[in-house]
Amino acid sequence: MKFSLYIFFLLITLSVRTQTLDSLQIKSIYDYSLTSSTCYENLRSLCKDVGHRLSGSKSAQKAVEWAEYTMKTTNLDSVYLQPVMVPHWERGDYERVYWKNNKGKIVNANCTALGGSIGTDGVLTAEVIEVNSWNELEKLGNENINGKIVFYNRPMNPTYISTFMAYGSCVDQRHQGASRAVEYGAVGVIVRSMTLKFDKNPHTGSMGYKNAKNKIPAAAISTVDAHELSVAIRNNNVKSLSIELSCRQLMDTLSYNVIGEIKGSEFPEEIILVGGHLDSWDIGEGAHDDGAGVVQSLQVLESFKKLNITPKRTIRCVMYMNEENGNRGGKHYANVVKNSGEYHLFALESDRGGFSPRGYSIDGTDMQLKYLQKFESLLTPYQLHIFKKGYGGVDIGPLKNGEICLVGLVPDSQRYFDFHHAPTDVFENVNKRELELGASAITSIVYLVDKYGLADAKSFKK
Amino acid sequence: MKFSLYIFFLLITLSVRTQTLDSLQIKSIYDYSLTSSTCYENLRSLCKDVGHRLSGSKSAQKAVEWAEYTMKTTNLDSVYLQPVMVPHWERGDYERVYWKNNKGKIVNANCTALGGSIGTDGVLTAEVIEVNSWNELEKLGNENINGKIVFYNRPMNPTYISTFMAYGSCVDQRHQGASRAVEYGAVGVIVRSMTLKFDKNPHTGSMGYKNAKNKIPAAAISTVDAHELSVAIRNNNVKSLSIELSCRQLMDTLSYNVIGEIKGSEFPEEIILVGGHLDSWDIGEGAHDDGAGVVQSLQVLESFKKLNITPKRTIRCVMYMNEENGNRGGKHYANVVKNSGEYHLFALESDRGGFSPRGYSIDGTDMQLKYLQKFESLLTPYQLHIFKKGYGGVDIGPLKNGEICLVGLVPDSQRYFDFHHAPTDVFENVNKRELELGASAITSIVYLVDKYGLADAKSFKK
Repeated sequence: MKFSLYIFFLLITLSVRTQTLDSLQIKSIYDYSLTSSTCYENLRSLCKDVGHRLSGSKSAQKAVEWAEYTMKTTNLDSVYLQPVMVPHWERGDYERVYWKNNKGKIVNANCTALGGSIGTDGVLTAEVIEVNSWNELEKLGNENINGKIVFYNRPMNPTYISTFMAYGSCVDQRHQGASRAVEYGAVGVIVRSMTLKFDKNPHTGSMGYKNAKNKIPAAAISTVDAHELSVAIRNNNVKSLSIELSCRQLMDTLSYNVIGEIKGSEFPEEIILVGGHLDSWDIGEGAHDDGAGVVQSLQVLESFKKLNITPKRTIRCVMYMNEENGNRGGKHYANVVKNSGEYHLFALESDRGGFSPRGYSIDGTDMQLKYLQKFESLLTPYQLHIFKKGYGGVDIGPLKNGEICLVGLVPDSQRYFDFHHAPTDVFENVNKRELELGASAITSIVYLVDKYGLADAKSFKK
Repeated sequence: MKFSLYIFFLLITLSVRTQTLDSLQIKSIYDYSLTSSTCYENLRSLCKDVGHRLSGSKSAQKAVEWAEYTMKTTNLDSVYLQPVMVPHWERGDYERVYWKNNKGKIVNANCTALGGSIGTDGVLTAEVIEVNSWNELEKLGNENINGKIVFYNRPMNPTYISTFMAYGSCVDQRHQGASRAVEYGAVGVIVRSMTLKFDKNPHTGSMGYKNAKNKIPAAAISTVDAHELSVAIRNNNVKSLSIELSCRQLMDTLSYNVIGEIKGSEFPEEIILVGGHLDSWDIGEGAHDDGAGVVQSLQVLESFKKLNITPKRTIRCVMYMNEENGNRGGKHYANVVKNSGEYHLFALESDRGGFSPRGYSIDGTDMQLKYLQKFESLLTPYQLHIFKKGYGGVDIGPLKNGEICLVGLVPDSQRYFDFHHAPTDVFENVNKRELELGASAITSIVYLVDKYGLADAKSFKK
């Protein structure tokens, strides 16, 4: 046998052996997660002992304490709080949307104030006008809109396979609806809930008054109510619509990102970050959004500890504050990193719900993408099949600097917007195995990135 | 340019154009399904207007009428009933499992008779003994088992990624538990429910007395109850266990497979079959098992009609009777096919729940497998990624003859056994989009197989 051939076979053999060892380690990660991990119990506790946790609220502070305590019981090398000032918006005691038909009958809609909206200071009553596109809004103009409430009723497009695409195609109504309607003299807006489900649950979410000449109140109504209102409008059977909201913006409040880590044994200065956001909207329990991501991220560190995997690099779990209405936690964390000169190799965010994992959405260089794709064969036995360029996540987004590799866990998206920002986003709607499989998918890729790094593509052969 | 090179580029161009046309057609199949199809409403109607439908029952007959009526409104070329005699087992009015602890306290368990079990003729009370493997049963032997009730408590193994593997690893307890325990003188058996979920729902399913020297009653209890009973046994705190079942086996009953088809325009004698089973267990509504498969199968033909796709081959939808406790419908259908000399090219069954589709499990020749794998690139945009050798399904299984290609739709399996054979298998637990995506996945592959056939691999270039 020629020497070069010998070397070739030796390398192949070593590579196969490495793959086998990695396969076994990944199997042990899955086995641990599916039999003994605490992420499901942690989620129960976060949802039931703390509950929802909007930035600035008392329960958000309780969540910070819960997170610190839970991290400490995971026996990490260090756990600490990173102070950050966050917005403090409060829903208040009441919210009501109803319309009066031609016979004077009141029809109540299932509603929720949009996060960031001003209150109504009593009842706001006006004529209502339905709008289904920005073009239509512009065309209707001041003459048709002035003094009225604008009802945005463009539905999520069901033909997108990824429901995030469908969400992206119409969430501008919620974000910008008030600012744009006020240009034409609107006095308030209501928005069809951002969901593909036809039901009576209203879905909240953030809105803003960027560049708005003045602020007008904004609320969402359920898809069933939106349909009924639209039919009533078409039949000329809506005399007036009323909005009554007690919500208000308070002073910014001190809160915290909660951080825990295991120090790396060889390259402690290279950080691999896993995270989700601790805050949630103030209806439901923030179970999928983003309790799931938070407990899965902590699960990564727990798995390393329990399986006696000593990481080469520092593995850090960040439970971010204020993703929902400001991303102050994510921005502040990235600033601290920048100012301290800390080096982050890789950051993975889980914030798309605790559903069956499908793969990874990779926001990095082409080389990093190719490199991560080499792990695919190790992960397909776990039904992970998405390894493609895409968005990482809101919290980790500010870390982007052309060097770091940002990754978003991609679970099956079909049911996400059934629960997103709605009263139904509760613990009972998260499946234990799906949550645990997601945690395993994160842990496995973190294990591989920690072992092989990302810069030196030669250290891992396909 | 050389002539051969010219031909090469021509073929490439034609192939790309074909792929583009197919992509467009598949997109239209998905769009139709996700916006206008009736499968979700059909499932609602089957679950709510008919309800559960165990073979031989009045509601199974109602389901046959429902199916015939629904097919007729789909405007097919022909709709007909295929008579078949089916077993008729009846649960009766009551079922109860409870144990008495050392203080004489009665502890009730959430229970369900296993399908096919005899009744108890009053209350059967005896000592109970827990068994976790066949080895253990054998070892305990007559001396420890005689006169007792055997409690099979081997759980589904959570470390399998496919829950069907986990089910396969322990459903033998349910099928054979009574027959094998009676060998050692047991007087009854209870079985831990076949589910990975830890909850209070009992799961029924078929059992048999094959080769049993006599028949003893058999029931399942929920996983929570199984856990509690096991703890009580370990603490020596179970004095006796009682079973009270009113179920009984009646005379075989006339029922029907319900069949509808669109005649092929070029090769009407070549049949492409899609199907699921119309019967269900008699608790819950048989929504995932297998209402979903039934309405998805009909959806295939509806899509062809509504999208004006004229099939070359005959597309036949079969709603089978009696998959759950006998598979008489599947066996009889295959016999009729054999006797009539009908030619079936391809048969696809959907009987793994109405969850997000992942791909296809293919039971055919290696050439057929390779051929179907060529369609993969057309279907990956729809997040279908499983194209591998595997089992087709119970109903279509008897068609196997070395020529036909059998295929099972593979949805995400994580939640299937949460609902399988349980009171929770109801319409509300099926997600509309997941159901429709499954129907689209079936329709798309049927469209491709109809267009290109399976025998001549040259007619479709990757």
